[in-house]
Amino acid sequence: MYEEVSRSIDDDLHSSVDALKKLVEIPTVAAKGEGIPETSELVERMLRDAGLETQIHPTSGAPVVTGWLDVGAKRTLLFYDHYDVQPAEPMDLWASPPFEPEVREGRLWGRGVADNKGDTTSRIQVIKAFKETGTDLPVNIKFVIEGEEEIGSPHLPEYTKKNKDFITADGGIWEFGGADIDGIQEAWLGLKGIYYVELEVERLSKNVHSSLACILPSAAYRLVWALSTLRDGNSRILIDGFYDGMKPLTKAEIKAIEKIDLHEADFKEIYAVDEYLNGLSGMELKKAYYGAPTCNICGITSGYQGRGSMTVLPAKASVKIDFRLIEGMHPDEIHRKLRRHLDSHGFNDIKIGYIEGYPPAKTPISHPFVKIVKAANRRVFGDLIIHPTSPGSGPLYLFNRYVPMVSVGCSDHLGNAHSPNESISLENFRRAQHRIVAIIDEMSRW
Amino acid sequence: MYEEVSRSIDDDLHSSVDALKKLVEIPTVAAKGEGIPETSELVERMLRDAGLETQIHPTSGAPVVTGWLDVGAKRTLLFYDHYDVQPAEPMDLWASPPFEPEVREGRLWGRGVADNKGDTTSRIQVIKAFKETGTDLPVNIKFVIEGEEEIGSPHLPEYTKKNKDFITADGGIWEFGGADIDGIQEAWLGLKGIYYVELEVERLSKNVHSSLACILPSAAYRLVWALSTLRDGNSRILIDGFYDGMKPLTKAEIKAIEKIDLHEADFKEIYAVDEYLNGLSGMELKKAYYGAPTCNICGITSGYQGRGSMTVLPAKASVKIDFRLIEGMHPDEIHRKLRRHLDSHGFNDIKIGYIEGYPPAKTPISHPFVKIVKAANRRVFGDLIIHPTSPGSGPLYLFNRYVPMVSVGCSDHLGNAHSPNESISLENFRRAQHRIVAIIDEMSRW
Repeated sequence: MYEEVSRSIDDDLHSSVDALKKLVEIPTVAAKGEGIPETSELVERMLRDAGLETQIHPTSGAPVVTGWLDVGAKRTLLFYDHYDVQPAEPMDLWASPPFEPEVREGRLWGRGVADNKGDTTSRIQVIKAFKETGTDLPVNIKFVIEGEEEIGSPHLPEYTKKNKDFITADGGIWEFGGADIDGIQEAWLGLKGIYYVELEVERLSKNVHSSLACILPSAAYRLVWALSTLRDGNSRILIDGFYDGMKPLTKAEIKAIEKIDLHEADFKEIYAVDEYLNGLSGMELKKAYYGAPTCNICGITSGYQGRGSMTVLPAKASVKIDFRLIEGMHPDEIHRKLRRHLDSHGFNDIKIGYIEGYPPAKTPISHPFVKIVKAANRRVFGDLIIHPTSPGSGPLYLFNRYVPMVSVGCSDHLGNAHSPNESISLENFRRAQHRIVAIIDEMSRW
Repeated sequence: MYEEVSRSIDDDLHSSVDALKKLVEIPTVAAKGEGIPETSELVERMLRDAGLETQIHPTSGAPVVTGWLDVGAKRTLLFYDHYDVQPAEPMDLWASPPFEPEVREGRLWGRGVADNKGDTTSRIQVIKAFKETGTDLPVNIKFVIEGEEEIGSPHLPEYTKKNKDFITADGGIWEFGGADIDGIQEAWLGLKGIYYVELEVERLSKNVHSSLACILPSAAYRLVWALSTLRDGNSRILIDGFYDGMKPLTKAEIKAIEKIDLHEADFKEIYAVDEYLNGLSGMELKKAYYGAPTCNICGITSGYQGRGSMTVLPAKASVKIDFRLIEGMHPDEIHRKLRRHLDSHGFNDIKIGYIEGYPPAKTPISHPFVKIVKAANRRVFGDLIIHPTSPGSGPLYLFNRYVPMVSVGCSDHLGNAHSPNESISLENFRRAQHRIVAIIDEMSRW
């Protein structure tokens, strides 16, 4: 089945890797607004070269790039990807520069190879292989590739609201995925929501000599006190009404996760922890993984951070926090509750910068498209572990009313997404392309 | 009296300023171990050029530079200064580069001009003026100039313990001082102690995707929780036994500070605060200023601190804290109490790096040398406000058993010591030299 396409994928692996390298060389850090126009244009060119019609949709932020090929088939397959990446900091922990992709030990290293420039490239390369071998596509193809996923897709709704017809499809492949620690492929059917804020407090006109701490207020301590009212020592979130309306995992989901192995012991070793948060293990650990919201400090900063000592009372302090949200919770509502919480605890001097937010979303386990992905995966990789949701977040809520989405990709447990030394296995990159061919084939017979 | 010396000081002001500029051009940041050998050698040369015998005393850290001239007089005057400076960060807030000293608006701008390269230079220049005018000094002179004051003088005891005879004198001028907001000169008779630590916690082998905050521990939150157990919302320090043995201000000190004007309204405006810590005012504010210990966050750091968002669970977090100590308290004892406190609150994962520490010290208000400085100041500046102690710290405890110390200098309320845009008034720099001449004169008649 599609032998020529498959052969072309294998024979042209080096040019797929070259295409990916070119994409990774642009530091498309959405958080810093860097590299957006160049990358969107390069992605558009890649889609065009694969034989797709294309359009660059401007938004108030980064443009959304779309590609499509209507072959008049019964079924339509949609890909959601993003061309932006996380910041590469801390830079000094990278073995090779993050934006100078390098092949070592059968892997490609660089910021964005796992999340998600690798999958973006692999999916486009499959369509290109159909074109270059003169093989007819048996399903219609659509790509939606945005440039602000890593900062919460703030402008993607401008595109999706105006293009409901385009994003309507029979099945969709979400941006990420890969192999677990045993090398078994995983699929993710949902995403937690997110509410990302920066809290800032400024109490003095300037940094002053710390001897004056006996009579002047401390911005840093104000922030510490406020943070300690948000989450207690057992990681219970203390914002009034935070858990209201939160939907627990369904019976079907609990049944599904009972079979999943989270590799507790392996990850303890990898992360160098004696125990998980609050000593969680077994089903309780899984329930937290799939079903618990979070209140997490992504970064905190105030005053002198250099070597040795500087005796200063800093004027300002700030913290970046991400809250992961479960079905039934909405970031705008948490935003209101957080403001109310800070005010009622006497912290009306703390400003909230609402950086990003979206609600959670899921595709039901029982959907036929989930079976198609499972069957296609079996033809290439074998078993597929199906997670009802990822603990991560993404703008799935904008799509899942119009298209059932499943997330599978070319990453693995060594991928270091969002961390230094991000990488993918070139073998997984190759086989993930074959899985897309199999999904196309399975879908054509649906 | 000493008219030729005085004329020489005025006529040679530009060369004094040039000498100071050369000293400021070396970024002698002790916290970073930068510029130490060059600066100690330059200071030694300055002392030699002023006609003093000199010695560079190596220590395990920065060398101590001494200079002396024994004229066989009855009385001996000692100067304590330091040739190191605070870090200049944040660099972007400086109007002119911190290590490229520049004269603007009758002031010299640069890191260290106020604290304390300006005073170091002014004092050496006075002795040089005696030499260059061929005027006999009526008192013996000693200089002790160290290079690690800004990091807590960790190696100065190596020098002082071996040189008790050298540091014995009839009176001493400590490193800092200047004019208050009304232009009235201030003298400081004591210094609070200090205990400076860096608390560090590491909970993961590496930074990970923040989606895993649902199951992995947070180093940053561990630190926040620990910090919130150290100091409450009313800035009461909660370490068990922290205040034990602390000596309150004496009746004589309380009487002295009753007369002092802390310029509450002016400084509220300067620091842009509606009120002082805990709404303090009047005598309560003064008692805190002269008599309260502190627990202050000088800097805190964890995770991503760039623009926008990065969804990361940081592996590590750290904080720099300075505690200011009152008579009766000792940093080593507070160190033991802090460790015990953290352990008893379940924070044995938090490491304490003991960066610097020394106890407080004071010269009694009634000492005759205090009267000498007051009389000398009257001849040049007029009134002198005598503070029983500064809220700041310094290694006075190493000296005050051997020499009564009074701190007067060439700074003022615009000096920005320890902050960006540090500066001194050139007029104060000039007149502070005349005051040294007057102190020498008054002392010779003691």
